[in-house]
Amino acid sequence: MMMGDDVENGNLGPYLDRPRTFPNMRSKPYTPLISEAIRDGAEGFFKTQYGTISKMAVLLALVILSIYLFRNTTPQQESSGLGRATSACITVAAFLLGALCSGVAGYVGMWVSVRANVRVSSAARRSAREALQIAVRAGGFSALVVVGMAVIGIAILYATFYVWLGVDSPGSMKVTDLPLLLVGYGFGASFVALFAQLGGGIYTKAADVGADLVGKVEQGIPEDDPRNPAVIADLVGDNVGDCAARGADLFESIAAEIISAMILGGTMAQHCKIEDPSGFILFPLVVHSFDLVVSSIGILSIRGTRDSNVKVPLEDPMTILQKGYSVTIILAVLTFFGSTRWLLYTEQAPSAWLNFSLCGLVGIITAYVFVWITKYYTDYKHEPVRTLALSSSTGHGTNIIAGVSLGLESTAIPVLVISVSIISAFWLGHTSGLVDETGSPTGGLFGTAVATMGMLSTAAYILTMDMFGPIADNAGGIVEMSQQPESVREITDVLDAVGNTTKATTKGFAIGSAALASFLLFSAYMDEVSSFAREPFKQVDIAIPEVFIGGLLGSMLIFLFSAWACAAVGRTAQEVVKEVRRQFIERPGIMDYKEKPDYGRCVAIVASASLREMIKPGALAIVSPIVVGFLFRVLGHYTGHPLLGAKVVAALLMFATVSGILMALFLNTAGGAWDNAKKFIETGALGGKGSESHKAAVTGDTVGDPFKDTAGPSLHVLIKMLATITLVMAPVFL
Amino acid sequence: MMMGDDVENGNLGPYLDRPRTFPNMRSKPYTPLISEAIRDGAEGFFKTQYGTISKMAVLLALVILSIYLFRNTTPQQESSGLGRATSACITVAAFLLGALCSGVAGYVGMWVSVRANVRVSSAARRSAREALQIAVRAGGFSALVVVGMAVIGIAILYATFYVWLGVDSPGSMKVTDLPLLLVGYGFGASFVALFAQLGGGIYTKAADVGADLVGKVEQGIPEDDPRNPAVIADLVGDNVGDCAARGADLFESIAAEIISAMILGGTMAQHCKIEDPSGFILFPLVVHSFDLVVSSIGILSIRGTRDSNVKVPLEDPMTILQKGYSVTIILAVLTFFGSTRWLLYTEQAPSAWLNFSLCGLVGIITAYVFVWITKYYTDYKHEPVRTLALSSSTGHGTNIIAGVSLGLESTAIPVLVISVSIISAFWLGHTSGLVDETGSPTGGLFGTAVATMGMLSTAAYILTMDMFGPIADNAGGIVEMSQQPESVREITDVLDAVGNTTKATTKGFAIGSAALASFLLFSAYMDEVSSFAREPFKQVDIAIPEVFIGGLLGSMLIFLFSAWACAAVGRTAQEVVKEVRRQFIERPGIMDYKEKPDYGRCVAIVASASLREMIKPGALAIVSPIVVGFLFRVLGHYTGHPLLGAKVVAALLMFATVSGILMALFLNTAGGAWDNAKKFIETGALGGKGSESHKAAVTGDTVGDPFKDTAGPSLHVLIKMLATITLVMAPVFL
Repeated sequence: MMMGDDVENGNLGPYLDRPRTFPNMRSKPYTPLISEAIRDGAEGFFKTQYGTISKMAVLLALVILSIYLFRNTTPQQESSGLGRATSACITVAAFLLGALCSGVAGYVGMWVSVRANVRVSSAARRSAREALQIAVRAGGFSALVVVGMAVIGIAILYATFYVWLGVDSPGSMKVTDLPLLLVGYGFGASFVALFAQLGGGIYTKAADVGADLVGKVEQGIPEDDPRNPAVIADLVGDNVGDCAARGADLFESIAAEIISAMILGGTMAQHCKIEDPSGFILFPLVVHSFDLVVSSIGILSIRGTRDSNVKVPLEDPMTILQKGYSVTIILAVLTFFGSTRWLLYTEQAPSAWLNFSLCGLVGIITAYVFVWITKYYTDYKHEPVRTLALSSSTGHGTNIIAGVSLGLESTAIPVLVISVSIISAFWLGHTSGLVDETGSPTGGLFGTAVATMGMLSTAAYILTMDMFGPIADNAGGIVEMSQQPESVREITDVLDAVGNTTKATTKGFAIGSAALASFLLFSAYMDEVSSFAREPFKQVDIAIPEVFIGGLLGSMLIFLFSAWACAAVGRTAQEVVKEVRRQFIERPGIMDYKEKPDYGRCVAIVASASLREMIKPGALAIVSPIVVGFLFRVLGHYTGHPLLGAKVVAALLMFATVSGILMALFLNTAGGAWDNAKKFIETGALGGKGSESHKAAVTGDTVGDPFKDTAGPSLHVLIKMLATITLVMAPVFL
Repeated sequence: MMMGDDVENGNLGPYLDRPRTFPNMRSKPYTPLISEAIRDGAEGFFKTQYGTISKMAVLLALVILSIYLFRNTTPQQESSGLGRATSACITVAAFLLGALCSGVAGYVGMWVSVRANVRVSSAARRSAREALQIAVRAGGFSALVVVGMAVIGIAILYATFYVWLGVDSPGSMKVTDLPLLLVGYGFGASFVALFAQLGGGIYTKAADVGADLVGKVEQGIPEDDPRNPAVIADLVGDNVGDCAARGADLFESIAAEIISAMILGGTMAQHCKIEDPSGFILFPLVVHSFDLVVSSIGILSIRGTRDSNVKVPLEDPMTILQKGYSVTIILAVLTFFGSTRWLLYTEQAPSAWLNFSLCGLVGIITAYVFVWITKYYTDYKHEPVRTLALSSSTGHGTNIIAGVSLGLESTAIPVLVISVSIISAFWLGHTSGLVDETGSPTGGLFGTAVATMGMLSTAAYILTMDMFGPIADNAGGIVEMSQQPESVREITDVLDAVGNTTKATTKGFAIGSAALASFLLFSAYMDEVSSFAREPFKQVDIAIPEVFIGGLLGSMLIFLFSAWACAAVGRTAQEVVKEVRRQFIERPGIMDYKEKPDYGRCVAIVASASLREMIKPGALAIVSPIVVGFLFRVLGHYTGHPLLGAKVVAALLMFATVSGILMALFLNTAGGAWDNAKKFIETGALGGKGSESHKAAVTGDTVGDPFKDTAGPSLHVLIKMLATITLVMAPVFL
């Protein structure tokens, strides 16, 4: 690529020749000032946001408490002497703990990133490799804390309940029923994650879109230019939107996946009358503990070259990160085989552990393929983004049409991959040799659960690559604002571009694992309903009109939720645009670096708007399954259809999951591709920066922002939240 | 609206002061020349397109023939002595007849519109009311032919089979089994409609987008300006894309709905042991015959004032059309009640006919509400489009985000309406008093079928309003190109704007009726499978992993199909853009009206590209259900799951229908809203024509074009095509 050379030579267009910062920013101590402004903005927003979320969580806890105090008990509870009050307290306590841990996970992600950004920016002055290393280690720290908290939180809850309820002693609960008590934890985690992602996502993208529309498009000043009044809000957004929210997202994925796998393991062990079922139940916790180890090794394999003072040309950071990923994956496969042999070996079916190892392998391969597919569709080294960039040369309209088509098309291969993994893991489990009392094979669903664990067995490393992105992006912003030499900006730019790709791939990974985890939660839901209703609930028959309508409503929920999330960004961005335009008009000195813009006002506008806007879609997601389930329960009661409410909710859940997966894939990929098509043009292709093609590409990028960073990732969380809320609220539908 | 006055005063911006046509176009005889060029282009494309489609239809007929020659026979066939060869010939003959009728329906729509356009443009010189009347009558003629052909085609087939097979005589077929032989007709109709809509939709929007991007956006010349080399291709597109394709679309809706209702009526009559079942079977044909009468009266109620030579200020054409709609609806309700009393009265359940009348009323109300909702979301008199227009003032990006959100949000209320109608019609039917041998109520599904008939009972009038739009649009183009006085253009502009709204509402109507029709075809499919398999097939249980995956694949099919349809328009539009740019560069005289552009080249480019591009999405739609069904049939065979293939296909069908409804609503509404937001700004609001807001709105309109006129309407047809293809191909899945 001839044109690609331009950027490597630092030729970023004519406007870089102008003075690049305000006089009082040129002094050395300005860098800490910027990073402090970012930190204050991020922590301020975090406090207000989590204040609101905790109030809602307490309210919801009261609702759950009252429902559980009036619900029927299950035969299991009765046989174990677990009263209504105890059961209610357990669920509420688990819910609150889950919510708390999810909040802490988000906080850690943000805490680290607002501190690491300035260190990366100063490391970039010394060497590219060192900057990369610091960013990766910082991301890795947050990732390990997030994954660790999910594992330890569940382990502590499990151990507490085990001891407190006297599990497995005569007359009390059986160990195989214990995991069902943990669902509240998963719901708490997804509840907080949903609002964290919505609020943070709206914040980051409203600031970004608003800053770009006036700064880049109207005034032609570069990204992160200190003259743009919305620049600090934009940098704050990277921290609260990307770091905090993705941390909560993956925390919640892992928690939901561990709990559903424990439930399935318990149910299966009980059906197969396995003597010591604890291996099957504790297996997920062990797998994720190994994740912490293997991912740490992967992260540490990325070594710095601190001693080299010469600025050696940077090896492609993507290659370095992928080497680390390969190390992690190989170790994950090995430990996975070890863990299955250790915990899943049973004399009833001596080769079952081998089948389950292969299920794990299916999951690991699925994760790898997902990462690869997302890279193919969003990296400008490949055909799709290049075609998209080319379509910018015929205007804004063709660029948007091409991006939408690309996003819609990109759903196909992931769906095929997920389909193949579900079926093959299911059949590997099914043929594992584990049979129930009647002799029919029973390991299918657990096989799928093991595949999900395999997929998530490198979660900490994947999350590291994700956290790395916003840290690099922020470091770039600090470098730009404090007028560092061009060569420093170059280094952070390269890291930022890699960060964009890794962020996109993490989303692919997150949606793939969400699809598998939700699939597991369906069957947990059906088990739960049949324990409460004391009758079998094995089928969700969509040939029944009401059930079909439940499905229709579930898919519609996804469309409406996405609409409201995108609209929230659009509305808030318009407020930012007006504010920035106002400042440019009222303070004409800004453009000549004579007058400083009022960054604080933009931060305040975005913060209050995103808190306001996160409520509507969030409430929709929580209220609609409950309302639909309750209404159809009443309808079923009057028309003589028992379980109608529960069936309709199951259809709602499954259709919402399917539509949610597709919509999230569409939104994430389209957004990532638009972003990188713009970056490709900025390397000088098709006219480069400032050309008409570039303007069209910037429009695409703007449209993609709420797609990929607000609505898309909120959908990952939404589909898991729906699965856990239906599980916890099951008594309402009966 | 102060700003709205501008357009009424004819103030359409400064560029209208320039000379407006080429010297040799100013002579009177030029008008016929333009309309001849449009007619030749349209008929040329129609011939080539339908040539390709007929080759594919013959190929598919051979495939169906060979499948039916090797398929198992059903017990019904055996008892009636219907051999494999006869059954194969019947299905293939019905398929070919359906395909032929669908083709003729499309041809009539186009034939009328390419002749009516020039008459409307010359009537506009005399009086607005007369122009409206001619356009409505022309649209009405096509609409009546389309609906009439659906009714007569099925009636002839039914009568032929009745006589030929000696139905109801001892030892031969029972009349209640006869409707199942007609499914080939529905499949033929939807097969042709799919390719007609795809090819025509790609043609019309590629030409439109290409013309707008260079003409309006780059060069700032108005719509339909004779200097634009793509203008004739654009006007041709209106005819082949809108008239021909929507004709085929509604033809196919009515045919599918009649056939599925006849099947359900037959099945129900058999279960209830009704003595003379022909009333239940023939009911749909009678309802649609009445449609022809009541819609004709509605159309004729729109009277011209030919004698008035004075140009009286035009009454809002929308009001006139809605008066006609009210007349039609009132008559439809009355005839519907009459027909139910006449044909559905049975002594077994004396009040059943009343329940079914109410089902019909539910359908009619649903149609009305759908039309109203679409109008609310796409007419600039209402809030949503105004908000969208406002978002254009902050740039291209916010306009697209707002449009996407609006479209996604607009799916919610229609889904709620469809849900309420399905449930209430089902329960009205269920409680009608009709019971089967075991005494359980059995009229539920037939109730839904009657509601669908009610919805479609004003189809001819709705189709008239739809056909009216492109005729007015074309007339406007001819007026613009032949430099008629401003006042004439004003009249056609008003008609065109009304046409845009009616086109959008027809799409709402089409998708609503498609949703109901597909819901009926599900149960026809399940009946068909259980006859072939000789075992009951009553449930589609999505808790089975393979069946769930069928659903995932079905939803994915919708996303991929939409992607390919949009991408086809984007790619072809880029070719047009390059050609138009080339002509402007190579013939600099075009802009000063000194050199004539080469219209023919654009027509040729668009025609050949759209023929090429329609194959991929079309083939996807036809091949994927067959492949999925066959693969899972094989998998089921090896894993001991009988009927697995059929169940997976059922899930694919239902999920595809749900996703298809939502996606089509999203695409149609977003497209319509963008179009009218632009039109709202063109009335002078938010800066008016030529402002930055207008440019952003034009981008939105461009993006909306393939949404609302290619992918969206193709999805209507797709979901019905899937329902009929699975019905005809059922033997492959067993």
